[in-house]
Amino acid sequence: LSVVTFRSDFGSTDEAAGVCRSVITSLAPDARVIDLTHDIPVFDVRAGALARVRAVQYLPQGIVLAAVDPTGADRAIAVEVEGGLLLGPDNGILEPAVAMLGGPMRVVACTNPEYQLPSPGATFLARDVLAPAAGHLASGVRLEALGEVVDPFSLTPSLLPLPTEADGTLSGEVWWVDHFGNLQTNIDPDEMRTLGAEVGMTIEVYIGGSTRMARWVEHYRDAKPSELVMVTDAYGLCSLAMDRPSAAAELK
Amino acid sequence: LSVVTFRSDFGSTDEAAGVCRSVITSLAPDARVIDLTHDIPVFDVRAGALARVRAVQYLPQGIVLAAVDPTGADRAIAVEVEGGLLLGPDNGILEPAVAMLGGPMRVVACTNPEYQLPSPGATFLARDVLAPAAGHLASGVRLEALGEVVDPFSLTPSLLPLPTEADGTLSGEVWWVDHFGNLQTNIDPDEMRTLGAEVGMTIEVYIGGSTRMARWVEHYRDAKPSELVMVTDAYGLCSLAMDRPSAAAELK
Amino acid sequence: LSVVTFRSDFGSTDEAAGVCRSVITSLAPDARVIDLTHDIPVFDVRAGALARVRAVQYLPQGIVLAAVDPTGADRAIAVEVEGGLLLGPDNGILEPAVAMLGGPMRVVACTNPEYQLPSPGATFLARDVLAPAAGHLASGVRLEALGEVVDPFSLTPSLLPLPTEADGTLSGEVWWVDHFGNLQTNIDPDEMRTLGAEVGMTIEVYIGGSTRMARWVEHYRDAKPSELVMVTDAYGLCSLAMDRPSAAAELK
Repeated sequence: LSVVTFRSDFGSTDEAAGVCRSVITSLAPDARVIDLTHDIPVFDVRAGALARVRAVQYLPQGIVLAAVDPTGADRAIAVEVEGGLLLGPDNGILEPAVAMLGGPMRVVACTNPEYQLPSPGATFLARDVLAPAAGHLASGVRLEALGEVVDPFSLTPSLLPLPTEADGTLSGEVWWVDHFGNLQTNIDPDEMRTLGAEVGMTIEVYIGGSTRMARWVEHYRDAKPSELVMVTDAYGLCSLAMDRPSAAAELK
Repeated sequence: LSVVTFRSDFGSTDEAAGVCRSVITSLAPDARVIDLTHDIPVFDVRAGALARVRAVQYLPQGIVLAAVDPTGADRAIAVEVEGGLLLGPDNGILEPAVAMLGGPMRVVACTNPEYQLPSPGATFLARDVLAPAAGHLASGVRLEALGEVVDPFSLTPSLLPLPTEADGTLSGEVWWVDHFGNLQTNIDPDEMRTLGAEVGMTIEVYIGGSTRMARWVEHYRDAKPSELVMVTDAYGLCSLAMDRPSAAAELK
Repeated sequence: LSVVTFRSDFGSTDEAAGVCRSVITSLAPDARVIDLTHDIPVFDVRAGALARVRAVQYLPQGIVLAAVDPTGADRAIAVEVEGGLLLGPDNGILEPAVAMLGGPMRVVACTNPEYQLPSPGATFLARDVLAPAAGHLASGVRLEALGEVVDPFSLTPSLLPLPTEADGTLSGEVWWVDHFGNLQTNIDPDEMRTLGAEVGMTIEVYIGGSTRMARWVEHYRDAKPSELVMVTDAYGLCSLAMDRPSAAAELK
């Protein structure tokens, strides 16, 4: 349990993420802190959960800390899963990753003040509760010491949207615009195949009020200049992509 | 002394911070480098000092490196304090943190070329002097080896502003706009209490040429939609906050 | 080989760099991952190569991972040099650094699927090939295990521009605008001296269609307010600088 993977929505313009890293290192000098990302849009629980889901299969075993805005949460929780522990506010952000990892084995609410830092003012959940919890767990403190065990069914549920199908049309959402401008949807290629679509076919795409044609190709490099294509992206989901210019610039 | 907490104003658009990390790691392969923040506004000594002050109580024991713009400094210094060493240019940036940590025990000017890197051109103080000093100290070099001991009273003083009071009005400054748009002032809640203010009261706030009313509340969540409130923030200082939209957007 | 210096063009707005860090750490729990920079402009092979060149003399011995856009590359390569290994796409990005480090000793194409991660969709070269290669090498896997040895002369060449001289005029390029707005050129001060220029002289500079005079000074601080100066910068190259406002703002 000596690796702490750390994600937050603090950005990098102030020292908030650095302070949390410092708190973890102070409590667990031998722990390795791996930054996942700190630029999850503020207040965007959904984006946070998605970044987690996309990344979760690649994280090292250990502790995963999601120090994100606790809006909607009245407590911090630690969720034990196969191979590790997830820490975050109880506002649904952990749930999709927990589900991907086989479901919760044990859940503890981080309520024991002995494993928290006193604040000089308002509580800063990440710095005062979550980072100390990560540090203590990384240094060998048992999970139950952090607070009372709670029923997994009492956790705040996640609100991740799933695609729906009607009359041969799949309705999904764009979940992410990546650094290269590709639009990642929440649609699984298998759902497309169920409707009879396959690689090589041209798909009608309704997006932003207009209709576009996208060819389903195997590789990004199969796109002709300015052609809109659909690919199964590196996370196994349907993405809309173009050769330069990017799909995001073209479609939005 | 095997943890180096590293802060700079280099941003992340080039490799400057990475090169300093590399220099430290080359000299002290077992040292742990913890990034505090690298987005302190360029040339802003005051913001740099404040980030340090806000964070200092949370830093792990060890070496703290402030690789910031050396404007106003003609030397790099290493200041020994209770529990660690602070490294930075002698331009006042270290002083507030040194004061918070109980004052300087010993100060050394980093002048010994044996513990510096030769530059192919202009000296890059952080890369050529400060990072090597951090690396050598982390690998066990004694403080005095870095250069001559200097009188703490010869250091460049800091220019951190303090609030003033006249006719029942406290005049302070906004020190920081955090990632969520809250405005942190340099006013201690106790100074407000001395003037008779207390939680629950509504305070007259003069800011940016206009007057606003702000209710002093216990928690950010006590703010009603669009209401301006004052809270004792997570660093123990008076902050102006709003529920969305942010106080920064509303007031500036 | 237990230090992995990591550079990419992923930015920080999603978790791509973090996932690569996670993959390396999963495979080599004892390796130290040092971030160089992740904001190399997307698709800009030249900027990427330059960041590498500027930094290379300061990197710790070990593995250097350049997880940049693989446009123009049909394979990932590992290049053994004196003191370490460089990993990246075979699109010319590694070449200048390899040259600076004394040339390639051995080159291997990373083609062995045993040391790659299976992708749920499109291959993400950094995550699925390069980061696993770095992790395996850091954990002791031999270079030859990653794939077949290839002829260094078969690598894609770099396109780094060199300055040219005609009729006493040196034509170079601005390679980099640093965080402080200084313009770094690809001109070596010795090339200026060959043409009879020396420190203290005023140089005619043709840039962006107009002509400016720049005084060649020793130190940035020798610039008078608003004066354009040329200095030998911290990387040993000719840079154009101004006291505030920055040279970049003034000249572009």
